[in-house]
Amino acid sequence: MFEKRVKKIKNFLKENSSGGFLISNFYNILYLSGLKTLTKNEREAWLLITNKDNYLFTDGRYLTNFQTNHNSSFLTFKLITPEKGLIFHLKEIAKNEKIKKLAVEGDDLKVNEFNSLKQVLTEIEIVLTNKIIINQRSTKDNQEIEKIKKACQITDSCLKEVVKTIKPGQTEKEIAYKIEFWLKEKGYDLAFYPIVAIDKNSTIPHYDTRVNGLEKVKKQSVILIDFGAKYQDYLSDITRMVFVGRPISQQINIYNKLLSIQKKTLNFSQKNFLGKDLAFYCRQLYQKEGLPQCPHSIGHGVGLEIHEYPKVNSLSEEKIINNQVFTVEPGVYLENLWGIRIEDTVLFKNKIIPLTKYPKSLYHLI
Amino acid sequence: MFEKRVKKIKNFLKENSSGGFLISNFYNILYLSGLKTLTKNEREAWLLITNKDNYLFTDGRYLTNFQTNHNSSFLTFKLITPEKGLIFHLKEIAKNEKIKKLAVEGDDLKVNEFNSLKQVLTEIEIVLTNKIIINQRSTKDNQEIEKIKKACQITDSCLKEVVKTIKPGQTEKEIAYKIEFWLKEKGYDLAFYPIVAIDKNSTIPHYDTRVNGLEKVKKQSVILIDFGAKYQDYLSDITRMVFVGRPISQQINIYNKLLSIQKKTLNFSQKNFLGKDLAFYCRQLYQKEGLPQCPHSIGHGVGLEIHEYPKVNSLSEEKIINNQVFTVEPGVYLENLWGIRIEDTVLFKNKIIPLTKYPKSLYHLI
Repeated sequence: MFEKRVKKIKNFLKENSSGGFLISNFYNILYLSGLKTLTKNEREAWLLITNKDNYLFTDGRYLTNFQTNHNSSFLTFKLITPEKGLIFHLKEIAKNEKIKKLAVEGDDLKVNEFNSLKQVLTEIEIVLTNKIIINQRSTKDNQEIEKIKKACQITDSCLKEVVKTIKPGQTEKEIAYKIEFWLKEKGYDLAFYPIVAIDKNSTIPHYDTRVNGLEKVKKQSVILIDFGAKYQDYLSDITRMVFVGRPISQQINIYNKLLSIQKKTLNFSQKNFLGKDLAFYCRQLYQKEGLPQCPHSIGHGVGLEIHEYPKVNSLSEEKIINNQVFTVEPGVYLENLWGIRIEDTVLFKNKIIPLTKYPKSLYHLI
Repeated sequence: MFEKRVKKIKNFLKENSSGGFLISNFYNILYLSGLKTLTKNEREAWLLITNKDNYLFTDGRYLTNFQTNHNSSFLTFKLITPEKGLIFHLKEIAKNEKIKKLAVEGDDLKVNEFNSLKQVLTEIEIVLTNKIIINQRSTKDNQEIEKIKKACQITDSCLKEVVKTIKPGQTEKEIAYKIEFWLKEKGYDLAFYPIVAIDKNSTIPHYDTRVNGLEKVKKQSVILIDFGAKYQDYLSDITRMVFVGRPISQQINIYNKLLSIQKKTLNFSQKNFLGKDLAFYCRQLYQKEGLPQCPHSIGHGVGLEIHEYPKVNSLSEEKIINNQVFTVEPGVYLENLWGIRIEDTVLFKNKIIPLTKYPKSLYHLI
C-alpha cells in the first residue's frame, strides 16, 4: 500500500530528473510511510524518497515503536540525534547516491527552513514543488476508501443516537459534547469540533460552538448539526437539520427546495467535469428555485484532512476523477433568522455515490 | 492588553526601519489581536502592524462575530473576499502608508507563499524575521499568568479526582479518557492528549496512549500520567507517578532520588542564568545520585502552545527572566522495566515558583 504510493513519487523524480524528494508535511509523511508523529508542526520526522531508497528520519522516541508496530521493510531508518540531525544524513545520502537535484515541498517548508537547507546543501540544486503529494492524495486507494466509508457509517450511527436525546433546554455545547463523547467512548475521534448551531446561530456557516455554544434548544428551534468522525486517521463530514416542533411553512418550503438542489447536485453527470462545473450546476439550481446564493463553497475534498483536494468551488479547474472523495453541502442562510445546510460525504466512481446515508427528509422532534 | 503587546512590534518596526510587520502565525495572531480562527494552517486571517495602524484581514465568517464579541478598537478590519484578497489590501495599505520595507515571519511563512508575495509586491523590500513574536511570547503578562495559574489549578483538581478512580484492570486509554472527560464536562479542554503509560510503556517518554494505550493496570503496576489542561487558550503541564501496591525498593529508591533532583532543580538560583545552566545543574545532580541521564529536555516553555520559549535544554542560550513560564521535568527510564518522571509547570519571578501543586511524595494505591 505505502510502496504503491511511494512509487508515484519515484515516477515524479524520473520525470523531473530529480535525485530525491524531501517531504516535510505531517500528513504526507503519514500517507507515504505510516508514521504519525505527536505534533503536526514540530518537524519530528522527515521522509526522503530517492531513486534507490526511501529514508525516514526521526528520533529515538518514535523509531523503535514504529519499527516494531509497522510493516516498514520499504523504509531505511535514519536516527535523528542532537549531534546527527537531518542535514548530516542528507549530506551523506546525497553523496552516496550522487544526488544533484532535490525536490522539496514549497507549500509546506518555511522560508527560513528552506534558506537553511540551501546554505548547507551548497552542491545540490533545491527545487520547489507545489502540492504534488496533496494532489496525489486527492485520489484515494481502496484502503483509504474503506476507512472513509467506515468513518461515514460511524457518523450516521452517532447522529441517530444523539438526535434521539435532543430536548428543549439543552445548549449547543451540550449537544456537541454528546457527539464527541459518543465517538470517543467507542474509540473513534472527531474529524473536527462539531458545529451545533441553533436558530440565529445557524446563519453563521462556520459558527464556533466551542467558543460560543450557549444558545438553548427551544420549542420551534432550528438546529444545524455539522460534524464528522475520524476512523484510523480518515475523516467524514455530514450536516443535518433538526427542527423542534413542526417547522413553519417558510422553513418547510426552503428545506425542501434545498434538499432537491442537493439531490440534483448528487445526480449531476457530465463527461469529464471539473470541480467548478459541479459548483456552477448547483448554483444554477439556486437561481431556478429563487433561493439566496450559497455564501461558501459547494464542497471540498475529505481524507486525512477535513479540507483536501479536489476543491469543489467556482474557481476549481481540477477534473473530478474516479476514487475522489468530497462533500456536497449547499446551504441557505436567512440573515437574523435561521440557516439550513444539507451535506454528504461522497465518493466519485463514474457517478457521485453518497457515503453518509443518514435520512434527509425533513425531520422534526415532538 | 493587546495594545501593549502590539506596541512592542511597533518598537521593532522603528528599530528596523520597517513600515510594517505581516503576521501569519495562528498563535501570534491570537496573541496580538484575540482572533482565533477555526483552523491553524488554512490562513484564514492575517495581521499587519504598521507604524500608523493595525490591520486584521479575515473573511466574513469571522469578522462580524469578532467585532461584536471583542474589544477591537485598536484594529482596522479588512474584509477578505474572493475578489479582494490579502494582496489587494496589502498593496493599498502600502501605497497609503508609503511602506517600503515589510517584515514577515520567516519561521512561519511557506516558501511558496513568500515567493508569491515577492512577485506581486515588487516595490516593497520583504524582510525575513525569525521568532520575533515567539520570543516576545516567552515572557507572560499578568493576564497570561493568571490564565496559566488557573490551568494549573484545574490540572491539580483533575488529577486528584482521576487518581481516586484508578483500579486494576483499567487500560491506559480508559484513564486518559477519564482525564479528558473530567476536563471537558467542566468546559475546559486538554492541553494535549494525555500520556498514560503503564509499566514497560512508561519507559517511552512520548508514549502515544491514543494509538496504543491498551496496557492494563495490574497489582504492582507503575503508572506514569502526563497531561495538561487548557483554560482560555492557555496551557498547563504536569507529570505524576502512581504506584499500585507498595513499590519495590528499587522503585522507592529511584523515585526519591529523582524527586530530590526535581526539588533541587526548582530551588536552583544563580544570577542571570540561562536555560542551559538550569539543564546542566539538573544533569549534574543525576551524576551525583548515580542515575542514568535524562534522555529528553529538562523542560520547555508553556503558554498558548505546549512547547514554547524559553527552551530549557543543554543548548539553550536564552536568559531565564521574570514572568517566563516553563516546565521542570526530569525523568529516569530503565529499559524494559519502568520509567519515572516528575514534572511541574513553574513561573520564574526572581525564583522558580511551581504553579502545579499536586503532592509529589511517593504515592501508592491500596
